[in-house]
Amino acid sequence: MPTSSEGTIFPYTCRMELQHDLFLRAAKGEEVPRPPVWLMRQAGRILPQYRAIRERLRDFKELVETPALAAEVTIQPVDELGVDAAIIFSDILVIPEAMGLPYEMEEKRGPVFPNTIKTMADVLRLRAPEDAAGQLHYVYDALEITRRDLAGRVPLIGFAGAPWTILAYMVEGKGSKTFSLAKKMLYTQPELAHQLLDSITETTLLYLRQKAAHGADLIQIFDSWAGILSPQQYQEFAIPYLRRLCEGLQPIPVTVFAKGAWFAMPEIAQLPCAVIGTDWHMDPQQVRQWVGPEKVLQGNMDPCQLYASPDVVFAQTQQMLTQFGRKHIANLGHGVYPDTPLASVKAFVEAVKSYTYPISR
Amino acid sequence: MPTSSEGTIFPYTCRMELQHDLFLRAAKGEEVPRPPVWLMRQAGRILPQYRAIRERLRDFKELVETPALAAEVTIQPVDELGVDAAIIFSDILVIPEAMGLPYEMEEKRGPVFPNTIKTMADVLRLRAPEDAAGQLHYVYDALEITRRDLAGRVPLIGFAGAPWTILAYMVEGKGSKTFSLAKKMLYTQPELAHQLLDSITETTLLYLRQKAAHGADLIQIFDSWAGILSPQQYQEFAIPYLRRLCEGLQPIPVTVFAKGAWFAMPEIAQLPCAVIGTDWHMDPQQVRQWVGPEKVLQGNMDPCQLYASPDVVFAQTQQMLTQFGRKHIANLGHGVYPDTPLASVKAFVEAVKSYTYPISR
Repeated sequence: MPTSSEGTIFPYTCRMELQHDLFLRAAKGEEVPRPPVWLMRQAGRILPQYRAIRERLRDFKELVETPALAAEVTIQPVDELGVDAAIIFSDILVIPEAMGLPYEMEEKRGPVFPNTIKTMADVLRLRAPEDAAGQLHYVYDALEITRRDLAGRVPLIGFAGAPWTILAYMVEGKGSKTFSLAKKMLYTQPELAHQLLDSITETTLLYLRQKAAHGADLIQIFDSWAGILSPQQYQEFAIPYLRRLCEGLQPIPVTVFAKGAWFAMPEIAQLPCAVIGTDWHMDPQQVRQWVGPEKVLQGNMDPCQLYASPDVVFAQTQQMLTQFGRKHIANLGHGVYPDTPLASVKAFVEAVKSYTYPISR
Repeated sequence: MPTSSEGTIFPYTCRMELQHDLFLRAAKGEEVPRPPVWLMRQAGRILPQYRAIRERLRDFKELVETPALAAEVTIQPVDELGVDAAIIFSDILVIPEAMGLPYEMEEKRGPVFPNTIKTMADVLRLRAPEDAAGQLHYVYDALEITRRDLAGRVPLIGFAGAPWTILAYMVEGKGSKTFSLAKKMLYTQPELAHQLLDSITETTLLYLRQKAAHGADLIQIFDSWAGILSPQQYQEFAIPYLRRLCEGLQPIPVTVFAKGAWFAMPEIAQLPCAVIGTDWHMDPQQVRQWVGPEKVLQGNMDPCQLYASPDVVFAQTQQMLTQFGRKHIANLGHGVYPDTPLASVKAFVEAVKSYTYPISR
């Protein structure tokens, strides 16, 4: 297995040539014959192959932390669904854990942090960014194995949570409808929040550079809880840190997916990212107006639409492609839900792969 | 206690003259010297008086179902905070329960329905709208008592959940981040969904007319889960039923608060409602553009902003008032959170009450 020098910001240079680079070319805004397609959470419970592996294991974290298995489930959707990109199987919460706040993944309840951040002393007690990013060799190893086993079939996406979303978990300690504890910190202890966001950003940047060095071709940043901030808060506590990540990762292409942050689309459009993710609330033409002609858009079918029959899914997917037009990567507007029928997921992928853009420009 | 004839759609005629009708005049679009103010969930845990009553009781439902106590907590914020309107203490889930699906309110977990709607047979088994609305005398009694004890001090708001939000609970059976079961019904069994929405709408309309007949001056419709639908789904499964409610309630003024439904604002603006609620994501000037000059807007401070100190809250509240300008009812963009400091809630109310619109138009 080839290894790369630690700390370089350039993607993994000693690797097999990509045989199928449609996804990367589209992400960079190049002209392509059809949009590429992948699904958020494609490596997961929708696949019987995934469920078979998961059943043998103690818990979700064992899968995240075992590189050979993480690599195996990363590649499953490439084999089974024929998607145009793989995304490394992992979790956004490996970052707070590496920083010194371990999490547990409780069945049905989701992630829970026994310790949370309340004071500046708590922030100062966290691991320094380099030490924290150095905890995550199991992720880097999973990327290397995936890269080797993909053998250039499709590009590999690496990812991390956006700093605000990671702060939300570190302060709240668990999922929440309102994240009122985390938002309270932004309103009442803004310096503390900025200090924590700074640490998270620095750690995430080192981590993502390592991910790229170990084989990720593109980085997607998930701002899963973007949608609960006010526009002013998003401006102050999210955008500057997203900017630091995008700038610090250059020239690696970055996708920013800020779920629910319709109100910040014009600001997100100003980030030096290649691709902007869109959720299912956003009308493709409206979001194109908001962000201008340059950025590639990714999304955005409602994951619940895949509960419909395969022929309905096929037709609605091609309708979505027509609405987006060029500079588009086909995906859902959220992760695919675990109980989605596989036949409909396949219809979604096939609808994109059998589509061609009209010739006229 | 005066009684009104059942079934009339006109508000309670035999009642004390309102001494303070600022809220109603503003809701009707009349020119007023300052915006009126109230808070969603003002009758609740923020008040020590409420917590004292709640501690004596078995559970939340006992309070909802005991008219004298519901009336007492309805009036508490008028006494303690000096708000310009009272809102009857109740729950949107009394409607599904009256239709034949009882709910339990579990501490921390929220509402849970032991039985849910899955098939047309389940829908046909529900109580007919008139029978269902007839189950809710405890609400009508609470309104009468509140009306008597308010003695014309401020107007009284009645409310219900929007049909889509009620369907979401009846199908999902509990709160959910995705409401994917309920949305699945919309995509895979649209006729069943429409049949259920029709029953809910008819029941809700009869219920709200009774609420008005028993003392509610204005009706607010909470579409709490509006924000998880796609624009197309909102158009098909929400707007037509909201329209039936608004039309069926005329001439009673109606407020429609569709949380998270920024994408449907232009359609909501076309409803025959008096007031449109806005959540904290919406920029006052932008939403005014979306809905045009006619409608009164209600909202929209982020409830987390009230965690700040009273002087900060005071300043930020007045800033919000300036942004909204006229045709505005001051409120939060969501229900006030239970752990909000009372001093900051009071600062919010005082900031509105000490504000006057600039004289120039």
